Amino acid sequence: MQPDLLNSAQLAHTSHLLRDRSPLVHCMTNDVVQTFTANVLLALGASPAMVIDAQEAPQFAALADALLINVGTLTQERAHAMRLAVDSANANNTPWTLDPVAVGALSFRTEFCQQLLALRPAAIRGNASEIMALAGMSHGGRGVDTTDTAVAALPAAQALARQYSTLVAVTGEVDYVTDGRRTLMITGGDALMTRVVGTGCALSAVVAACCALPGDALDNVAAACGMMKRAGRVATENSRGPGSFVAAFLDALYAEGQP
Amino acid sequence: MQPDLLNSAQLAHTSHLLRDRSPLVHCMTNDVVQTFTANVLLALGASPAMVIDAQEAPQFAALADALLINVGTLTQERAHAMRLAVDSANANNTPWTLDPVAVGALSFRTEFCQQLLALRPAAIRGNASEIMALAGMSHGGRGVDTTDTAVAALPAAQALARQYSTLVAVTGEVDYVTDGRRTLMITGGDALMTRVVGTGCALSAVVAACCALPGDALDNVAAACGMMKRAGRVATENSRGPGSFVAAFLDALYAEGQP
Amino acid sequence: MQPDLLNSAQLAHTSHLLRDRSPLVHCMTNDVVQTFTANVLLALGASPAMVIDAQEAPQFAALADALLINVGTLTQERAHAMRLAVDSANANNTPWTLDPVAVGALSFRTEFCQQLLALRPAAIRGNASEIMALAGMSHGGRGVDTTDTAVAALPAAQALARQYSTLVAVTGEVDYVTDGRRTLMITGGDALMTRVVGTGCALSAVVAACCALPGDALDNVAAACGMMKRAGRVATENSRGPGSFVAAFLDALYAEGQP
Repeated sequence: MQPDLLNSAQLAHTSHLLRDRSPLVHCMTNDVVQTFTANVLLALGASPAMVIDAQEAPQFAALADALLINVGTLTQERAHAMRLAVDSANANNTPWTLDPVAVGALSFRTEFCQQLLALRPAAIRGNASEIMALAGMSHGGRGVDTTDTAVAALPAAQALARQYSTLVAVTGEVDYVTDGRRTLMITGGDALMTRVVGTGCALSAVVAACCALPGDALDNVAAACGMMKRAGRVATENSRGPGSFVAAFLDALYAEGQP
Repeated sequence: MQPDLLNSAQLAHTSHLLRDRSPLVHCMTNDVVQTFTANVLLALGASPAMVIDAQEAPQFAALADALLINVGTLTQERAHAMRLAVDSANANNTPWTLDPVAVGALSFRTEFCQQLLALRPAAIRGNASEIMALAGMSHGGRGVDTTDTAVAALPAAQALARQYSTLVAVTGEVDYVTDGRRTLMITGGDALMTRVVGTGCALSAVVAACCALPGDALDNVAAACGMMKRAGRVATENSRGPGSFVAAFLDALYAEGQP
Repeated sequence: MQPDLLNSAQLAHTSHLLRDRSPLVHCMTNDVVQTFTANVLLALGASPAMVIDAQEAPQFAALADALLINVGTLTQERAHAMRLAVDSANANNTPWTLDPVAVGALSFRTEFCQQLLALRPAAIRGNASEIMALAGMSHGGRGVDTTDTAVAALPAAQALARQYSTLVAVTGEVDYVTDGRRTLMITGGDALMTRVVGTGCALSAVVAACCALPGDALDNVAAACGMMKRAGRVATENSRGPGSFVAAFLDALYAEGQP
């Protein structure tokens, strides 16, 4: 079945909702992208907070509107705290999102992500190699980079979504968001985004935030991808390389939902 | 009693002192703001160093001119190392500053911060909800954000300062710095600063640095707030959003104390 | 013996090689510079990945083209994982690079770095005080900053390089790279680079990446220094302070190896 294009009215609607509701997003993410992730959420009007210890992560997951689990720099202690946070999120109806960074090639995180899949994530966001590895259809990419295109991973995304009753966003040059039945396609962005660390990880945080919004979750998650693609395009036009891109990208996100 | 306005001569004086002395600031801070904190201190002419393990944090606290304890991404191990570093700082007359991020809502860090209060911080820097929670007058804000105004927290700040013989900076749209008797007020800045992660945490690092300077500590800490407010105003004028703000802010801080 | 100047043809050659081969660089580095390190590698066309737990670091070191060990925010757990990663790198002929941040003043990291020296690093990159401390010729600098000039540390660098059959890059206002017999000198850069956190740490990551390239390792490591010096000069001309420097620097690195 042909995916539908995300429409721009939906994008504008979700973007305004995000700024209006300002969901409190509990981010348990990797060490490399913490600042950028927080700044992306702040630029879009959401409220990020990073709480990571096993003693307090479950308490915070109960208070937050959404939870993000990103395994980029997983450690055994972080994995333990994440599991407790996910349990607490589930007990409190806090939707949680999984970013399975570099899953496939590394046994520890692959096993951990497989365990998490059973704990009903509201959404999963990954690149093509990650989604294919998570679905058991490949052995992952090269480090944190994909070696496949998103369209090649679409069947894996749809199978995953159906098997775990979740939304899967497989992102790359083109993004696809699917619940296993309906699929939305998001175009835009620029290759320069792959020369800046954390654009994918930050997108996962925006996906997490959008899972806390009212309305259709698939539409809202696709809109999350759309906000990032659109800002990426605007930022590329306003920058001279990956350094100036970062500032221009946050400025563009900030402009997204402004009245 | 009416707070006095920080005067600009004091601001200029402390700013020059900071650049001249270049205090070595031992930062034990959260994962989200490490880079920005270091860059803020460097821009102002101070010398940051992050040393975090229990094996070496006490050794470094003895060598440093100032110590910062920020509990944003507290873990049990970090808490243990922080306690050792504070003991070493006290034994070596290194002034130390507490940033009680998100205290109140989370039990683990609330208990930890209460324990630290007894260990004679030179200064405490927090937003209104944090200062009120630390003084036992509320249960904290929403995640890392305040739900109160700084002026509402001024009585709590003054009570805390008196009880623990310390300086308290309660910061927000307007900042107040108090020793429980004298209070200075600092205006300026811009709401855009709340859309960039780490401006408060970095201010705490500048407060820590200023506690190592000669002269009146209350004046120097108020000047720390003033430097950030002034740079925030300049940066807002020179930026198009929170992304370009970061660069403009560091540039403005760098220009502060230049001859 | 007089050091030779790095020639610009070598710089261009290595820079193109780096973009062409895009080595996968396993970075075990400090918490403060993770984002900047990743962005520097990405701007130059390399592929960074941060994998830090003892359970998976050795597995990833075997897959990667190069490994970086930076002890800036060393912890006991990280030290354990680093040792396993280095063993795996050696077993798999993955060249690894040591950045001995603040070695000398702190016992824990000094002992750890001394142990690592015996494990055959392909290269060591440090400032003058670090290289002198590592060679047992001083007790380190002030925090993470050097108190010596690179030229003063050249004998220490040459002695280290001969003793451990490695390359040593001692960097500062002028950089020197030596194998203990031949020494290359790299000029350029700007003092503004010392007001931005992570320029030295990121250089170590580029050194690590260049150790994975074909050709003469000494030439390639000197070229790594040259890329950073040249981009630093360009960025200084295009910026108004340390904030705008960061963006301009990454833009300049990105432009380096572009066709």
